[in-house]
Amino acid sequence: MRILTGLQPSGKLHVGNYFGAMEPAVRLQDQGEAFYFIANYHAMNTVRNPDELRAYTREVAIDFLACGLDPDRVVFFLQSAVPEVNELAWILSTVCPVSQLEKAHSYKDKVAHGFSPSHGLFAYPVLMAADILLYDSNQVPVGKDQKQHLEITRDLAGKINEAFGEGTLVVPEPIIRESAAVVPGVDGQKMSKSYGNTLPLFADPAEVKKIIMKKLVTDATPLEDPKPKENSTLLALYRLMASEADVATMEADFDRGGIGYGDFKKRLLDAYLERFEPMRARREELLADPGYIDQVLAKGAEKARAAAAPVIDRVRRAVGLA
Amino acid sequence: MRILTGLQPSGKLHVGNYFGAMEPAVRLQDQGEAFYFIANYHAMNTVRNPDELRAYTREVAIDFLACGLDPDRVVFFLQSAVPEVNELAWILSTVCPVSQLEKAHSYKDKVAHGFSPSHGLFAYPVLMAADILLYDSNQVPVGKDQKQHLEITRDLAGKINEAFGEGTLVVPEPIIRESAAVVPGVDGQKMSKSYGNTLPLFADPAEVKKIIMKKLVTDATPLEDPKPKENSTLLALYRLMASEADVATMEADFDRGGIGYGDFKKRLLDAYLERFEPMRARREELLADPGYIDQVLAKGAEKARAAAAPVIDRVRRAVGLA
Repeated sequence: MRILTGLQPSGKLHVGNYFGAMEPAVRLQDQGEAFYFIANYHAMNTVRNPDELRAYTREVAIDFLACGLDPDRVVFFLQSAVPEVNELAWILSTVCPVSQLEKAHSYKDKVAHGFSPSHGLFAYPVLMAADILLYDSNQVPVGKDQKQHLEITRDLAGKINEAFGEGTLVVPEPIIRESAAVVPGVDGQKMSKSYGNTLPLFADPAEVKKIIMKKLVTDATPLEDPKPKENSTLLALYRLMASEADVATMEADFDRGGIGYGDFKKRLLDAYLERFEPMRARREELLADPGYIDQVLAKGAEKARAAAAPVIDRVRRAVGLA
Repeated sequence: MRILTGLQPSGKLHVGNYFGAMEPAVRLQDQGEAFYFIANYHAMNTVRNPDELRAYTREVAIDFLACGLDPDRVVFFLQSAVPEVNELAWILSTVCPVSQLEKAHSYKDKVAHGFSPSHGLFAYPVLMAADILLYDSNQVPVGKDQKQHLEITRDLAGKINEAFGEGTLVVPEPIIRESAAVVPGVDGQKMSKSYGNTLPLFADPAEVKKIIMKKLVTDATPLEDPKPKENSTLLALYRLMASEADVATMEADFDRGGIGYGDFKKRLLDAYLERFEPMRARREELLADPGYIDQVLAKGAEKARAAAAPVIDRVRRAVGLA
């Protein structure tokens, strides 16, 4: 059972990224033969600065390792380490109707937002399909927003098999994460870099303390009164980070009253530090040892290429390129 | 000065293909460092049968060698021997507006003709740009119909250079063949497989004789009268194949009268045989020696890869993939 996940190198990570993407990915690494890649080809659609692209690519690698990705269990590699993915994308293009891509949400959204879309963005679902199919992936964990892209992948694999023989490509199954954690930002909206409401994942503890104590929204309930649990951003963040027992205690204290938000915020900070300080420390170690990252990615590239080689070879023969 | 030409593997060749594409390409092989490739990735847009694709690819290689392509002077290779072209196509895609491809004639024509176009067809100008740019090509001979595609290529190369540094890609110059030979078919229309009016390039002489004597159109001018030279399909074909002196003689005989079309047709057949019999014979030899073709294409692939490697390497560094 081969599970594939792609990660966009998108700059500094926050707590929302962690619970939405990294934590589920790290949890999945024990459940099969996991292939995780850093999607630097895809990132080219948004990152036009080569130094930034290199830095983001490297940072997301380091961040994932810091978050617990185990490179001995996961095949962890850069998308660009296996350029054959572009060849498979071309082959898929020849059976992919243009209309199918015109209907893709990610593209329609960009157009609706007034973007002048690039062909790279238009072709994104085809390259994504190739990412998946190049490794004979059986399962692909996807959020609801990526469901349609996986349907396109399955459809293209089916078209290739129909035209060139069953078994040319493995048709993958989605693992839909229906209940992906919704992580609120410090202002109560969804946590997002573009809203400027993030809790950083790897910041200095003093900076995090400042954000939690000064920026995290609470309501005006007096100290002595019970605090409303519903719509409490503080409590929502605490639930993600603290133990079940600690969460139960805080909920009871909310109900009871007599404790102020400043106190609760300190508990949240403690939970944050307990959860993320070890990762931040690990990240500092990794940053200090660039040779190790190079080695991890080189080993991952080798394994990924070894997995891709028989697939692209099989496809080339099937379609008549070899 | 590097000159690049791509050849679609499109099945049995005819005299129209020869004068429109192969003869000019063979003539160009002395004028620079010529790179000729057989576009089997592109052919996938129309050929869905792997055995056909393999056969067409091999046939066009044999046919070109038979027509005088010199593999010691030309780097002669299959497009699929250098899959890096697909990686470059992706990189170009990220700077190519979708609108630019929507405006491409080849795509608009297909849509206008009611085709349900594939993404491969839509993306064709991007892969064609990569074909050209991967080899630092300086010059690309194009017919008028391909002028727009070369403009797209130049535009994409310019965009890459602007975004990632001058010299990342070489911007190629077109060699426009304004006066590409218009070769009439035996019914007087443009010679085309789809009109069923072709004179085959490598057919049995008896078959060609039959086509010329029975199918080639002439008018009803009596034997003793002068023959109209204008709009004479017979004379147009003869001009392509015969020597200047023989053409002058036939033109004088047209003017003078007293000679019938049957006679002129025999002269055309002689000219055809004199021109193409040696090629047909050479082709038979090549067909009997498959090892030689393999060897030619392997050598070409090696040279093409050696030329492409520093270019893709330069581009990967420039954009931040390496």
